[in-house]
Amino acid sequence: MEPIESLPLPLPPPPPPSLDVLVARLGRWSAGRGPLYLLLAARLRRLIDEGVLPPGTLLPPDRRFATALAVGRTTVVAAYDALRQEGRLVRRQGSGTRVAPAALLARRLRSAGAETAAGASTGAGASTGAGPVMGAPRVRETSNPLFLHLLEAPDDVILLSCAAPDRAPDALAEAYRSLELPVGDLGYHPAGLGALREAVAARYAARGVPTGPGQVLVTTGAQQALALLARLLLAPGDGVLVEAPTYPGALDLFREAAAVPLPVAVGPDGVDVAEAVRLMERHRPALAYVVARFQNPTGTVLPPLAGRRLVEAANALGVPLVEDEALADLAFDAGAPWTPLSAYGEVVAVGSLSKVVWGGLRIGWVRGPAPLIARLARLKALHDLGSDVPAQLAAARLLDGFGPVLAARVRTARAGHDHLRAELARLLPSWSCAPAAGGQTLWVRLPHGDGVSFAQLALRHGVAVLPGATADALGGSVRHLRLHFLAAPEVLTEAVRRLAAAWAEYTPGPEPVRAALHAITL
Amino acid sequence: MEPIESLPLPLPPPPPPSLDVLVARLGRWSAGRGPLYLLLAARLRRLIDEGVLPPGTLLPPDRRFATALAVGRTTVVAAYDALRQEGRLVRRQGSGTRVAPAALLARRLRSAGAETAAGASTGAGASTGAGPVMGAPRVRETSNPLFLHLLEAPDDVILLSCAAPDRAPDALAEAYRSLELPVGDLGYHPAGLGALREAVAARYAARGVPTGPGQVLVTTGAQQALALLARLLLAPGDGVLVEAPTYPGALDLFREAAAVPLPVAVGPDGVDVAEAVRLMERHRPALAYVVARFQNPTGTVLPPLAGRRLVEAANALGVPLVEDEALADLAFDAGAPWTPLSAYGEVVAVGSLSKVVWGGLRIGWVRGPAPLIARLARLKALHDLGSDVPAQLAAARLLDGFGPVLAARVRTARAGHDHLRAELARLLPSWSCAPAAGGQTLWVRLPHGDGVSFAQLALRHGVAVLPGATADALGGSVRHLRLHFLAAPEVLTEAVRRLAAAWAEYTPGPEPVRAALHAITL
Repeated sequence: MEPIESLPLPLPPPPPPSLDVLVARLGRWSAGRGPLYLLLAARLRRLIDEGVLPPGTLLPPDRRFATALAVGRTTVVAAYDALRQEGRLVRRQGSGTRVAPAALLARRLRSAGAETAAGASTGAGASTGAGPVMGAPRVRETSNPLFLHLLEAPDDVILLSCAAPDRAPDALAEAYRSLELPVGDLGYHPAGLGALREAVAARYAARGVPTGPGQVLVTTGAQQALALLARLLLAPGDGVLVEAPTYPGALDLFREAAAVPLPVAVGPDGVDVAEAVRLMERHRPALAYVVARFQNPTGTVLPPLAGRRLVEAANALGVPLVEDEALADLAFDAGAPWTPLSAYGEVVAVGSLSKVVWGGLRIGWVRGPAPLIARLARLKALHDLGSDVPAQLAAARLLDGFGPVLAARVRTARAGHDHLRAELARLLPSWSCAPAAGGQTLWVRLPHGDGVSFAQLALRHGVAVLPGATADALGGSVRHLRLHFLAAPEVLTEAVRRLAAAWAEYTPGPEPVRAALHAITL
Repeated sequence: MEPIESLPLPLPPPPPPSLDVLVARLGRWSAGRGPLYLLLAARLRRLIDEGVLPPGTLLPPDRRFATALAVGRTTVVAAYDALRQEGRLVRRQGSGTRVAPAALLARRLRSAGAETAAGASTGAGASTGAGPVMGAPRVRETSNPLFLHLLEAPDDVILLSCAAPDRAPDALAEAYRSLELPVGDLGYHPAGLGALREAVAARYAARGVPTGPGQVLVTTGAQQALALLARLLLAPGDGVLVEAPTYPGALDLFREAAAVPLPVAVGPDGVDVAEAVRLMERHRPALAYVVARFQNPTGTVLPPLAGRRLVEAANALGVPLVEDEALADLAFDAGAPWTPLSAYGEVVAVGSLSKVVWGGLRIGWVRGPAPLIARLARLKALHDLGSDVPAQLAAARLLDGFGPVLAARVRTARAGHDHLRAELARLLPSWSCAPAAGGQTLWVRLPHGDGVSFAQLALRHGVAVLPGATADALGGSVRHLRLHFLAAPEVLTEAVRRLAAAWAEYTPGPEPVRAALHAITL
């Protein structure tokens, strides 16, 4: 074998992923049997072979990486050593540990076909990782722990990271059973089925925001609504005003568009509107994204007057303002009326049935001016020709008689909220968390340490939680975790027991792992 | 009012849309009541107000535009005049007719709120077209007539342009009626439900291509499969090998990625493989896209030996080869076995249930190496968190017992094919079209004139057809039309009657309207 350390590296190497992003990309690496260093090496190998860590990528120093993973330093050293021996990593005096250059890597992979064919310690499909159909490595996929957890093989980890109900209400099954499929219909409705667009429009009208079906686009969940808006409105280098912390799935989309986040802190009463207005005046962002009601992840609610001020400022400055309403219906005080920001001026509202009904029913929407909706519909035609039609028929039927479905969901959520808080108070009294008025998550603050490394330890105890840092483009929320309370009471009880066991074992490093001054390429 | 003609134009103006693209973007402009020049002005107004034709866009000279639209020159002149009087167009001696500069346009729109509020002659939502939530004009939406027709309001136009069955088989309704929704499932499956991934994998295995579920990604139709592949594998300026003509929905996606098409002509036996290999050797495209079986739109079938040669060359050169199999099942000789290109080497296969089952069931897939599928799944998580779960359950059930569903669809398609050919032979004997061996479209050649301008006239006679030029990145297929034969016999009869009436009236211009050296911004 050639002395690979002496080969020149290609220039310029990709920017290194920030530590928290790399940790997120590792996913549930520590699940499985065998020594931790082999599990870590296996996951890094897969990320290298899939092009997620492209050739030349600088990996973190072993000590820092170990702290972030809540493992001993020898675990990281041994994993790096194993991958160096395979030729996947190279180390040069003074320049750290990097992913091996592309040519070398391809050669290694081709000759390694046989040796990498089996076992947890080798990763899946390594032998075809550098084959022709992979194309050049372009890392555009998500680094979002929410999403990555969904892509993991099932295991006995309790997911308190992904907040969504784990079953559909009976009303959905009933809607499907009585489904009548249309005749004389090609089935392609890029803007959405008329019946569903009307049902969604009627909801806004009922809240005092006159809306016609031409102002509604049906999407495959709120995530696609945000994806289409990002695609249509953002160009590389554009500023995007975001709350800090915010929904990480939106941050990821803005990063994919190579936009620059302009973060504004969230306080007990929601986003700091005065600061948001200052930032909009100074930078005229291409988009402003807020979760005004049951803010994700803090659970705060923006007061109506502040909301009005935000809308008026955005409108006056010509900044498109997007309100994410995916959680807005989930008030524990179910009778409380609420006013969407759209009532105060021109706003692009994004909604969804995933949280009230079920995530598997992939129905979301955008409500906005008709010309914008027309443009989004053309973009959606190009990207998927429209969302599933039976799902839209079922959704339209559900919205007709939505009250009981929502009320039942809220009752469950409220009970889960109370149960989770009680268990946390009992077993983890040093953690602090304010009660929520709605939504589906608690925003918990640790008394010391950091969420990224504690989440790693919690994973090895069988609970996945979302570290606040991954949601915070300001570099804050370091001590926070987001926990959802939608699971059954016995599951929540067991989850807190595991968290308490992890906490008893937790020894934070000298420096907390901070978020992301996220490199745009990630 | 200021003398708007004297205002300076912003620099640089966007590249003008090619004539056939502009015509496609007009959609069914001539539907509706009133003089043609008012209808044309209304549609142009909407495109301007929605930002589809951004400020500064050069419009075609009136005479050329009139030829392409199959209208008299005075129609175009009068439409341009109306829009100039509104301030939406400007005309300067020697530099032609352009969309007015942005600032001027916004001012006009704001003051025009009242006057543009009603009626077919003003377009929808013009008064909010330049509001803050629209963002800067970035034209990324499709110009594909297939898609644009789907976005039009229903009217009595027969759509022979969009090829898809107009109702679902009973088996789909049955699958939904017996649906059992899962419990203990968040419903987010970015890579697809296990049961459906296995069912799709089994289909490939049955055709001699061993496949595991980890090599399958479920998508929202084949269109999303292509969109994700384009997003993952293409960067601006990359070459993409395409057939000429090809599926325009794919061309549009490659254009959206700012890739450069490398077209290869299609002959009676499918794509010219020798030429494809030469182009791949010379340009090493980032992707090669072929429809090997029942090629869209020509209906040709690539012989197995040629397919093998194509795969081997692509693999040797490291060019990712994508085979679109959306139509491959639809052989009139239903017993005929067929071999996917994936049998010959590393290929990314894209499939769909839209054509055999129904377009409203938005289920497609990608079959490829597991690492590529893993990367696509992360991208799909970011874009929509996964496709609809009840649809996937229904699809998995349908695939278990797919034979009768497919056989019934093929019987209908074959009868439609024979009927459409017989009607064309009876009423339009000067048109030529070879019989197809499968698929769902006929590729018709006109004896004179061009497809773009004839399609405009056909629209005014109540039939939408796809001009071949919009599918041909080589600038060929000028005399061709694509007609689908999936409609009921009486609808096909009426469609041909209308086509014959249009043909009797058709007077082509001196120069045929050629395709697209498509500007990348469109």
